[in-house]
Parts: sequence; structure tokens; C-alpha cells
Amino acid sequence: MTVPRDSGTQTAAYYDPKPEYWDVPLMRNGEVIERPADHRTLTRRYTEEAVRFIDANKDRPFFLYFAHSLPHIPLARSADFVGHSAGGIYGDVIEEIDWSTGRVLDALRAAGIDRRTLVVFTSDNGPWLPYKTHGGSAGPLREGKGTTWEGGVRTPAIFWWPGTVRPSVVTEMGSAMDLFVTAAKLAGAVPPADRPIDGVDLRAPLTGAGPSPRQLLFYYWDSELRAVRKGAYKAHFITSGAYGEGDPRVEHSPPLLFNLAEDPGERHDIAAAHPDIVADLIKEASAHRQTVTPVKPLFDELLPSPGKH
Amino acid sequence: MTVPRDSGTQTAAYYDPKPEYWDVPLMRNGEVIERPADHRTLTRRYTEEAVRFIDANKDRPFFLYFAHSLPHIPLARSADFVGHSAGGIYGDVIEEIDWSTGRVLDALRAAGIDRRTLVVFTSDNGPWLPYKTHGGSAGPLREGKGTTWEGGVRTPAIFWWPGTVRPSVVTEMGSAMDLFVTAAKLAGAVPPADRPIDGVDLRAPLTGAGPSPRQLLFYYWDSELRAVRKGAYKAHFITSGAYGEGDPRVEHSPPLLFNLAEDPGERHDIAAAHPDIVADLIKEASAHRQTVTPVKPLFDELLPSPGKH
Repeated sequence: MTVPRDSGTQTAAYYDPKPEYWDVPLMRNGEVIERPADHRTLTRRYTEEAVRFIDANKDRPFFLYFAHSLPHIPLARSADFVGHSAGGIYGDVIEEIDWSTGRVLDALRAAGIDRRTLVVFTSDNGPWLPYKTHGGSAGPLREGKGTTWEGGVRTPAIFWWPGTVRPSVVTEMGSAMDLFVTAAKLAGAVPPADRPIDGVDLRAPLTGAGPSPRQLLFYYWDSELRAVRKGAYKAHFITSGAYGEGDPRVEHSPPLLFNLAEDPGERHDIAAAHPDIVADLIKEASAHRQTVTPVKPLFDELLPSPGKH
Repeated sequence: MTVPRDSGTQTAAYYDPKPEYWDVPLMRNGEVIERPADHRTLTRRYTEEAVRFIDANKDRPFFLYFAHSLPHIPLARSADFVGHSAGGIYGDVIEEIDWSTGRVLDALRAAGIDRRTLVVFTSDNGPWLPYKTHGGSAGPLREGKGTTWEGGVRTPAIFWWPGTVRPSVVTEMGSAMDLFVTAAKLAGAVPPADRPIDGVDLRAPLTGAGPSPRQLLFYYWDSELRAVRKGAYKAHFITSGAYGEGDPRVEHSPPLLFNLAEDPGERHDIAAAHPDIVADLIKEASAHRQTVTPVKPLFDELLPSPGKH
């Protein structure tokens, strides 16, 4: 849904949202059970549903995909969490999700399967900065959602499996694309061999057995390859602000080059001092392009107004 | 010492520093013991000196002020720490200081006084951003050293005293000015009553007994009051880039207003929506000005070229 910002009721739709502004259906297994859904209740009700699912399936292998609606805008939280955080409504929302995560882990412990279950907590993108304190923060990272700067694509990922995942902070590379292969390997399954698999097996960095096998990451905007990272180095071939706003689209030749180990905020372009690294990243981009065929983004066919999702 | 940046050997003085570029004396009790001092050895040798001091004084009350030269530019580290960090030379320097801190705590433990000693680890200012990856990072905070944005003045402070300081993260306000009163109170001493004392007693937030009594902070540049913080709110009356570079000096009327609890990066000026808070902070600034008499900064009299220190 695309709503212009800062124009009358549209502002209220984001910053003082009432369920009727959005008229969103809440569904269970394809059936609408409430409309408009009261978004203030979603974190709590999703959590109750997740705990029920765990309890119902605790005696057999299961996969629970628990995708919170929050903290996507418009922000909302249950009455118990209004004013819960010193950080305003965004803090309230995060603290309710923290409560929710605790309930999920409690359910696993209560079912006696906490040492047989992998829990992954992560996000699909960085903060939506035009929504200011309602959009979150990328901390020290540059820019946010809708860009291929680190603030747009790098997110925290917490892996929890007592006795199997080693408690530690890993700053090596991993991608949401790696979850499939990693989970399959951890479960003793064999990923299909009849097609290319973009993910890699992250068991080594998760268990402390060795470094991450992921050394390359390709940053896309729709079908356009915009940046490549190899080890600590990231080359930007194309940059722009988010969704056509902010900085204009610029093609960089030579690309911008950053050392993310020394400069995670992408503040200091070092391309001029490292033509060898630039050449290597250009080569990686070219090699990658040989392996993919651009297709029209599926979203463009599904939504009347593409881009914002 | 003021050295222009990015001009021939001056660049090397910062980015590939040799001791003879600086000709700095190393002194003990007023006596020059080495000149030029080899700055690569300073973290290690200061640490050895601190450990000796602790060992020599372990049987009586002592005050050790251990002021590292690093990570001030020009960066340097001992041979053991070259390439120690994935984060480049700045990371190497920080990891050697981390090693040093461990040696100090070990010395307290070995002397059996770790439960009778308060250790405070903190810094006097944020990163010097023009020096890029050699200057450090303020993380999510705005700007750096030489400004009254949070990136210039807000630094981490770690208090360690097993059995007395409660392990926790406190995000309330405190100031280096509070160390004197807090340490005196913790030691059972009474601060002098014959003069105004700018510091407050931080024992309550350190022990978990209550909130910080510091609710106000005044941000100065030399003798100029530039900003006031009260609780979560900070008003900027004057802003500028660091040391006459970057953004020009601007007087703001009304002041810029930020909610640091929701917006620690000072990105979203909310003065227009909160005239009552703006008025209150203006009142606090006026009341504070009544209590102080501006004086010429002492540094200006001591140094041939003022400002950079």
C-alpha cells in the first residue's frame, strides 16, 4: 500500500493510526477472522498463536515461520506496552516483540525441546528513515531501507540453540539466503542437487568450528546489480536514495570502494588507493552476471503501485 | 601541536608516524627519560608503570590516574598488536588498550584489592572525524570531537567494582564532572562545602538504588554556552562544524530541539511541536548563565595556536 507522506489524514494514518484508516484483514488459513484488524493486538495475538503451534507440534519435527507485522509502520502496541520504553513508541514496540520472543523461548523450554530447536531472530531490511523515530535506526550504518547501503540491507541475526550454537558475536558475512541450506544441514537433510542453490552452510561460524564460507554478497535493487561485497570490501556501482527520494541515482565508474571492517559506516571511499581491489570486484560482478537472467520483479505484477513494500 | 592535514610529510606525520616527526618527550616525575618517545611502546609501558604503581601502593588507599596517549592520533601500537584486529590500525590500538585494561584488573585481583577498588574507564571526547578511520567512530551519534553534538561529547563510561557497582547498562545522564563527588562519597569523604561543586553523586544509578540525580547538562565551546540538555531533551542554541571546518557557525532562534531518548542521533528537530519544552530549556540556560562568569580559556594562554588539543 502506497500512501503519500505528510499530507493530512495520510500523516495520521502513520503517526496516529486507527484500524479503520487501513481496513486490513486478519486471516487464519485463508479465512478472514477480523476486519479491520486491530493492529495494536497483533504482536500479542501472533505470539499466542505461535505458542499454541509449538505446543501442538512439540512431539514431531516442525517449522514455525513467525513473521511479526511490527515494527513496520504504522506502529502499534498493546495497552500493556504503552509508555513501556524510554525510547518512545518505537521502543515500546520493540519491547513488546522482546516480550514475545521470551514467550516463544519459554514455550520451547516448557515443551522440553529447547535443546532440539534452532531459533533464528532476524529482519528483512534496515530502518525506513523518512518515517523518522517511527522508522527505526541503522545505528552506525549508512542510510536505510530502499538503498543498497549497509543501513538498508545489513540487519542483526540471532541464532539460538543451547548446546549446539556457540554463544558469541560473529561479524562475518551471512545472508537470509543461507538459512535454507544451514537449517537443512543442521537437520541432517540434503539440499536438492538438481538446481543452483544461492545459500551457503553457516554451521561453521555458528558452532565456532571455522569461518563463514560466505565471502561474496551481491546487492540488488529490483533486477539491477548495484553493489558487490567480497570479504571486507564493498564496491558500489550504482547508488541512490530510497524509493526515488533523497540522493539521485548515480552510476559510479570506477565504483565507490569501502572497507567495511575499518569503515562500517561507508564514509571513506578508498577506490583511488586500491585499483587492484576495484578490478577484482568488477570481475566478480561480471562473473556473477553470467550466472543470472534478469526477470521482471513479481511484485510489479501483483501490486498496482510497485516499489514500496 | 597543530599540523595541517593532507599536505606532504604532514600527512605521513599522522598516517605513517615516525617518532622523529613528533619529537615528543617522555617524562617521569618531570624528568625527560626518552626523546623522541617511541609512541608504539606507550600503551605497553604505561600499563607496566600502572601495574607497578598498584603493586607498590596496594596496602594503602591510592588514586591512579591512567591517561592513555592512544587512541589519539597519530595511532601506534606495539609489534604484538600489528594486524591484531580485523578493524585496521584503530582496531589494533583499541585491542591493545583492552589488553592493558585486563592487566590492570589482573593486578588488582592479584593484590587482593579488586573488591575494594573502583575502576572507571571513560574518554574525554568523541571521534576526530576528519582523520577518517584513524579518528574513530561515534556509532549512531551525530558528528564528533570539536562539536557540541552528542558525537562530540557523549562517551562510554564503564564503572567496575565487584560487589558494589551493580552490573547493568545505565543510559541516564552522568558527566566526568561527577567523578569527583561520586568517588569522594564512595570513599566516605565529604566534598568541600566552601565552594560550588558542579558534580553530582552518581552512587544511586551505579548501585541500582535509584535514578541519576543529574538531569541537566550544559554544553560549552570554550566560553560559549551552545546547548542545554534536561532529561531526554536537548536544545542547541549554536551549532558549528569542528574547529572551524564543516558546517558553518549558526545561531538558532528558536533553538533546535531533539528528544535524545527517541532520537539519539539528533536527526529530527522537534522544536516547532514543543514550544513549552523549548521555553523551559531557554529558562534553564538563562538561570545557568547567572551562575557563571566567562573567563578566557587557559589553553589560549599556554599554546601558540589555540583550539586544537
